[in-house]
Amino acid sequence: MEKDPLYIQLYDHYKELISSGVLRPESKLPSIRQCASERMISKTTVEGAYLQLVAEGYVTSRPGSGFYVSSLDYEDITIPKESSYLEVYEKSKVIYDFASANVDYKTFNFSLWSKYIKHALRSEKRLISYGEPQGEYDLRVAISSYIEESREVLCSPHQVVIGAGIQSLLHILCSLIKHREKVAFINGSFNQGGAIFEDRGFETKIFNSIDENLNDLVEENVKIIYTSPSHTTPWGDVMPINTRLKLLNFAKQQDALIIEDDYDSEFRYYGRPVPSLQGLDGGEKVIYMGTFSKLLLPSLRISFMVLPIELLDLYKSKADLYNQTASKMEQIALCNFIKDGHLRRQIKKSRKFYMTKSRLLCNCINDVFKDKATASPGAGGFLIEMEVKKELLKKDFMKVCKEKGILIKDFYFKSGRENPCILLSCSGVTSEAFYPAMKFLKEIIFIK
Amino acid sequence: MEKDPLYIQLYDHYKELISSGVLRPESKLPSIRQCASERMISKTTVEGAYLQLVAEGYVTSRPGSGFYVSSLDYEDITIPKESSYLEVYEKSKVIYDFASANVDYKTFNFSLWSKYIKHALRSEKRLISYGEPQGEYDLRVAISSYIEESREVLCSPHQVVIGAGIQSLLHILCSLIKHREKVAFINGSFNQGGAIFEDRGFETKIFNSIDENLNDLVEENVKIIYTSPSHTTPWGDVMPINTRLKLLNFAKQQDALIIEDDYDSEFRYYGRPVPSLQGLDGGEKVIYMGTFSKLLLPSLRISFMVLPIELLDLYKSKADLYNQTASKMEQIALCNFIKDGHLRRQIKKSRKFYMTKSRLLCNCINDVFKDKATASPGAGGFLIEMEVKKELLKKDFMKVCKEKGILIKDFYFKSGRENPCILLSCSGVTSEAFYPAMKFLKEIIFIK
Repeated sequence: MEKDPLYIQLYDHYKELISSGVLRPESKLPSIRQCASERMISKTTVEGAYLQLVAEGYVTSRPGSGFYVSSLDYEDITIPKESSYLEVYEKSKVIYDFASANVDYKTFNFSLWSKYIKHALRSEKRLISYGEPQGEYDLRVAISSYIEESREVLCSPHQVVIGAGIQSLLHILCSLIKHREKVAFINGSFNQGGAIFEDRGFETKIFNSIDENLNDLVEENVKIIYTSPSHTTPWGDVMPINTRLKLLNFAKQQDALIIEDDYDSEFRYYGRPVPSLQGLDGGEKVIYMGTFSKLLLPSLRISFMVLPIELLDLYKSKADLYNQTASKMEQIALCNFIKDGHLRRQIKKSRKFYMTKSRLLCNCINDVFKDKATASPGAGGFLIEMEVKKELLKKDFMKVCKEKGILIKDFYFKSGRENPCILLSCSGVTSEAFYPAMKFLKEIIFIK
Repeated sequence: MEKDPLYIQLYDHYKELISSGVLRPESKLPSIRQCASERMISKTTVEGAYLQLVAEGYVTSRPGSGFYVSSLDYEDITIPKESSYLEVYEKSKVIYDFASANVDYKTFNFSLWSKYIKHALRSEKRLISYGEPQGEYDLRVAISSYIEESREVLCSPHQVVIGAGIQSLLHILCSLIKHREKVAFINGSFNQGGAIFEDRGFETKIFNSIDENLNDLVEENVKIIYTSPSHTTPWGDVMPINTRLKLLNFAKQQDALIIEDDYDSEFRYYGRPVPSLQGLDGGEKVIYMGTFSKLLLPSLRISFMVLPIELLDLYKSKADLYNQTASKMEQIALCNFIKDGHLRRQIKKSRKFYMTKSRLLCNCINDVFKDKATASPGAGGFLIEMEVKKELLKKDFMKVCKEKGILIKDFYFKSGRENPCILLSCSGVTSEAFYPAMKFLKEIIFIK
């Protein structure tokens, strides 16, 4: 560490004398000239120290008279001490991570992305200023045309709001809809948004499905519905068109709003992504939410929402209250990346990659477990569902797996099936490790 | 735009027929074989189209029988139309921006920062995963040792929480303190945090000063105090040590918490930054908040807070509910930038730069306005206060300035002074433009 400048040393010296009570309140400090000559330092140095003491209130300057020690009120204040809180930083050892929400790094072209980041770094004039609260305008243009093409979302860039993650956006949304008190979460869509709505004092309700619970939604006077129509189950089932129409009719009749959390919608292996709910009603009652964390990089914190026209004036009146949360440099890079068509290419490539990889895992499971398990890949996503012919208890099984170093995404029982199901994500394990991993899992389940 | 693959064209064709009612519910689609031979396309293509129609619910597959049109419930749904909301994108012309909150780009070494970003881009394995909800551990270590050295903040990395801007962090904080209902804002510190606390349903109160309002704080049973002790006025006055001690005593006696928003604290031209309030009480009752937006780049969205021990267990139990908002790549870059000592150097350089620049502006004002105005630079920050010897009305004056293209930070009357004061920020205007700008301002004020 560099040594402090002389005036700071002098300031520290006096501060110590005053704080400890050696120099009593109202006592006079030596004059600047006197102090300088006694210590053989310059008057400027002494003046620096004295003015700092004055600025912080340790000393009072009385013009024409000199510098006097202030009376300090230390009574109840304990002397600062090193913070003693030290947490043991433990991380259990993971050998195979089948619970991963990360992307497989083979799917991402880092050197291409680096080029776009480097290019964005050259926008010096843009980077020295705060960004638009709503997000950079050119990125909003790029997003709105991209989602129109790929997801049939109908919107203008003025309806797009950018933020660092879905949660940041939900906070803004909550401020726009706070008079609508009851939120329904459909099909396990709770995790993403639940914490925020509960924090904001909304009443949250969880429902199994639109078809079964439509009357309940009416009776309960639900005004907000949170759902992922293109991802109603972990392995990628989509909400059928009829249910979609029912839901939109409900929203219209009850003046309710639908939050369409469209995560992972691009990853349908078979066929193309199902068009959005938002596009189906022209964006009237739907708030569409998307994110680039799964499409590109989880560490890239850029998400967006498309507001319906009815919320737009209220949003515009409040927009300046909320600073933008997403990095401007990354916004600029992403904008050009999308414009140049790389996002589309990236998705195509990832889709193909995960389709192959998840099939590899399925084949491996069937090969290793033989008649003791059946595996099926989802229509979308990174996930494989595996039915195991063995009686298992969720709690025990998950615990043993964790202890042995193999992480499992989920464990559940399904109606109509005797055996328990295990959910595996294929993105966090290399395909070379599938065989050893499955042999290991088989051992855990059947030998123990 | 690329042409859609054949199976999508077929899918679109049938979707259109079904949606428009040409194909009635329950009518049977031609068999896959039949359709393929009629259209002279492959069976795989037809299967692709049919399965997509099934996935979206337009068609039902009855095994052994064939594909049937579902009955759709379109009644109330209007046909999607192009969104008609088009806002006129107007931006009034600005010639001189003395209201800027940006940094002067001369203070920032872009090529150095680029090196750190490029280096961070090479951490591929780290970038493919979601970040720690609390923020990257190595950055928290770097921050805690930096603020101990520069701001005398006492903490361990486990107390540091990182987020994209102060507002994101306040949202997390609000979830930890929601039983403490009344928040007091001192000395105009309201803007930064006010919106969030009001959103979260806290009762907010604004007070002038700790010294004058200490009894009110007790009487009102205030449990949270939001203040910027190292920046109690726009031009950088600090809270005297005696007031600090009073405030800490109050917090202890009333079991209240103090939020110390330490923005701009590093920019003291004269003397060194005043040590933090947090360090004075050993971090017991103070939540310390800092940001790198002003120190480095406003577009860099990385802020942090230091939680007191009493909130730590609650935070740890809730941490996983909130995704990290700051970009991981920028966190990695910032961590190494701090470790290599560049942050300290950057601040030293900026401090010197703004000290010179704000003095230049003062000299220019005194030179141009002669006896018609007096200017004084603040002890910290980018701001200059200018007393103008002319009767002016705030509303009129600000309006005229804006019309003429010169933006002013603030306009107010001060106790003890006859004349109005104008606040100017020197960061958004180059020093070469000071003379023409001040001549222009003089004209506006005195000639009109």
